[in-house]
Amino acid sequence: MKFARLGSPEHEMPVLIDNGVSYDLRPVTGDIDGAFLAGDGPARAAAALAAGELTPVDGADGLRVGAPIARPGAVLCIGMNYAAHAAESGSQPPSVPILFMKTPNTVVGPNDPVEIPRDSEKTDWEVELGVVIGSRALYLDSPEAALDHVAGFVLANDLSERTWQLEVSGGQWSKGKSAPGFCPIGPWLVTPDEVDHQQLRLRSFVNGEPRQDSNTSDMVFDVATIIWQLSQYLALEPGDLILTGTPEGVALSGRFPFLRAGDTVELDIAGLGAQRQEFVAAAR
Amino acid sequence: MKFARLGSPEHEMPVLIDNGVSYDLRPVTGDIDGAFLAGDGPARAAAALAAGELTPVDGADGLRVGAPIARPGAVLCIGMNYAAHAAESGSQPPSVPILFMKTPNTVVGPNDPVEIPRDSEKTDWEVELGVVIGSRALYLDSPEAALDHVAGFVLANDLSERTWQLEVSGGQWSKGKSAPGFCPIGPWLVTPDEVDHQQLRLRSFVNGEPRQDSNTSDMVFDVATIIWQLSQYLALEPGDLILTGTPEGVALSGRFPFLRAGDTVELDIAGLGAQRQEFVAAAR
Repeated sequence: MKFARLGSPEHEMPVLIDNGVSYDLRPVTGDIDGAFLAGDGPARAAAALAAGELTPVDGADGLRVGAPIARPGAVLCIGMNYAAHAAESGSQPPSVPILFMKTPNTVVGPNDPVEIPRDSEKTDWEVELGVVIGSRALYLDSPEAALDHVAGFVLANDLSERTWQLEVSGGQWSKGKSAPGFCPIGPWLVTPDEVDHQQLRLRSFVNGEPRQDSNTSDMVFDVATIIWQLSQYLALEPGDLILTGTPEGVALSGRFPFLRAGDTVELDIAGLGAQRQEFVAAAR
Repeated sequence: MKFARLGSPEHEMPVLIDNGVSYDLRPVTGDIDGAFLAGDGPARAAAALAAGELTPVDGADGLRVGAPIARPGAVLCIGMNYAAHAAESGSQPPSVPILFMKTPNTVVGPNDPVEIPRDSEKTDWEVELGVVIGSRALYLDSPEAALDHVAGFVLANDLSERTWQLEVSGGQWSKGKSAPGFCPIGPWLVTPDEVDHQQLRLRSFVNGEPRQDSNTSDMVFDVATIIWQLSQYLALEPGDLILTGTPEGVALSGRFPFLRAGDTVELDIAGLGAQRQEFVAAAR
């Protein structure tokens, strides 16, 4: 199944997408959030669709696409999880998953314009596979036990300001990861049965020119290992978002210019849809 | 004013404390959260008290003390913000505020028992001044503008697992900062008019023996500078919690043993109350 949230920011309507039709999910749930995902929400949604109880949304194509999940409790990010990206960043592939965070208020819709932060010189893109947690996970016994805790997958752009992340950070990356709008996700939350999540091509483009083009099969630590590992250190909760790292092809490599107002970034992951963001100057 | 939240986890009742009496604040607000703090909530609470519209809570002394604010949208932590603590950690004082995060689900009440995480060898205490944001702050013009965005102050314990923070982290600290229960705050949210927040003695004790004993006047970056700086990099939102760093005297220094099941940690900050946590083994 595919879930989405359509409408103006803070007032998105939950929808279920089936055969390209967006069905109003409000008879089943008020939102695509942790409570919906942790309970039997997805099963109830499927049952309501099968029973013909859901109505197509009028004019769905004209509505803004929001983030496909409500604001998460945490946005957990894995660094350097593709060997070639670690190399272009001047690092060895890590021996353990590296964890940093974005503030949850960075999460926005997949096509929302993004402000280049004030005084930013090094705003950079990062296409990533995002994992949405469906049930609480703490002290999992094995990677094999981890995938039962996944509600679904999303396309994500882990936007970064490299000066703030690396040069005025004291070495802690979160400062350059949390500007407003720095976590576009969606368009869809796709349930695990619909994708082979370790065999997905993921790409990014700037002004139509290719930048990243890799496959989730190239991850250093796969999704199951990431969730199992994180669960030893913290409690993952329903609705939490994990970004699993980006492949090579970002501006930090020195091969491409950083983003400027007027640029357009496009991203896609096979089966998870596409994003398109216009970058604009921050209001003064 | 002093606000608190009393009762069982997830079901705390908001209270206003005046002259040692806890008044039920539910006629004014359902919770001490971002919406309450951002609006005229504190002013309405004061007016209701003055008008005699609030009722003392029966048996308040017998109720569990919860965190004095609802779960924040973000827990933002400033590292190495006391010069002597930077030195005991083997570092120079930073030239810019260092930002890392804890997951918001770490926030618990000030006297809740804390589980030593499974397989933890280096659980450590950190008494800190916590700042609760009262209104959205982005691109502030100056440190002078920052204090208008403060709703109040809390006592906090920024609990840390040093192996996970420093040895199996790839250098990113958040992995050792986010175990369940690793952010006791409270007992009170104290409004800014009640304390001189850069002149507060802060202390910690383990099993009754002194560990930390410093003053917020020793911060490298004061509260106003921290908020002003952070607002250049991200949007602070009502109800967000900033932990402003810990002074010297933690186990990481090598001068004291790390925490073990059976240990008791006590902390206090002048004017902000006291905490007492029993450390217990994680359930298996």
